[in-house]
Amino acid sequence: MRLAELSTRSGVSTATIKYYLREGLLHPGRRITATQADYDEGHLRRLRLVRAMIQVGRIPVNSAREVLAALQDEELDRNRRLGTAVWALPHGPAPDESDPATDSARRTATELMDRLGWCYGGPSGETPTAPAYGMLVTAIAALARLGYPCATADLEPYARAMERIAATDLDLVERYGTPDEQVEAAVALTVLYEPVLLSLRRLAEAEESRRRFGGK
Amino acid sequence: MRLAELSTRSGVSTATIKYYLREGLLHPGRRITATQADYDEGHLRRLRLVRAMIQVGRIPVNSAREVLAALQDEELDRNRRLGTAVWALPHGPAPDESDPATDSARRTATELMDRLGWCYGGPSGETPTAPAYGMLVTAIAALARLGYPCATADLEPYARAMERIAATDLDLVERYGTPDEQVEAAVALTVLYEPVLLSLRRLAEAEESRRRFGGK
Repeated sequence: MRLAELSTRSGVSTATIKYYLREGLLHPGRRITATQADYDEGHLRRLRLVRAMIQVGRIPVNSAREVLAALQDEELDRNRRLGTAVWALPHGPAPDESDPATDSARRTATELMDRLGWCYGGPSGETPTAPAYGMLVTAIAALARLGYPCATADLEPYARAMERIAATDLDLVERYGTPDEQVEAAVALTVLYEPVLLSLRRLAEAEESRRRFGGK
Repeated sequence: MRLAELSTRSGVSTATIKYYLREGLLHPGRRITATQADYDEGHLRRLRLVRAMIQVGRIPVNSAREVLAALQDEELDRNRRLGTAVWALPHGPAPDESDPATDSARRTATELMDRLGWCYGGPSGETPTAPAYGMLVTAIAALARLGYPCATADLEPYARAMERIAATDLDLVERYGTPDEQVEAAVALTVLYEPVLLSLRRLAEAEESRRRFGGK
């Protein structure tokens, strides 16, 4: 299809598509003439993912580019491509190593991972630490610094609930046919379901508060 | 205690405390002399909540002020104060009513609430709609617009997991002694546990992906 059709079918303006092409967020179409190129279903799918990250997830262009590079790395198997792509998503501020709360937060996080039997090393199963682990350490340190509950036993029920959520996430991902589509869907669903989860939690809290504390 | 001690005990600089006082995020201390005031444990607790919202949750000062006003409204019972305070937290962009996806997202969200038996009206149990409900509609519309799974049946397992999370949240809240402290803790824990949940979800996804798709 031509650029105009790609724009109609994706709902993204031609100007924005050209911007994504320039920024390397979308791979070039197949050149037909000096001024025209041909785009396929792969471009359409990629555009959908780029919109999920940039327009909905408000992920910076540079981070989105890293995620996409990981998706394209054909050296990696499906599990490692999925891991690498999710790793490249932004994870908020790194733990503050000058803060004594960080050390103890790291001990709590490690103890929690051990208790759950989760690996948090690289998607390759080797060396470096998952950025989500750093995000967890930062979050625990903030709780500790302000004196709110954040012992391993406090965190465990949250982690158990997230195990079930992750199984649901991967069930959705497995609805997609090819490993390429699955990896793209995993990234998009990770980002797009975050506000679903946070809004459902607030609604569930209101419901639970009504049941416990009251009112009609 | 004097301002200097409040600063030491809270870890917040005196300049920042004075800023919070000016902005009405912290109630004035009891005047002792023309230039000195006395602060108590209530100020310390309030400072902790303000830091949770502003420094960790990155909530705008105006929204934080609304949350605090709701906490102080002595007309309301505990359940309604808790609801009103959580309502005042920022909830992201409101649903885009010019987008046809919003209508169908609202039908899905309503069907989900009915299936779960959750109320989403005001914390008083009456009229207006919870802002988290609007946040849910916006999130479902984004999924629909991009063609990702978002039927009621897709969302239900997420909501069920959030029911368990909310029960855990309220268990933490009930550790606090007085209704005042409980309402403050509910707001702080809602905000501070969001990055805990999102990071645990990503770690759980990596674990689940490893189990399903592989590697050693």
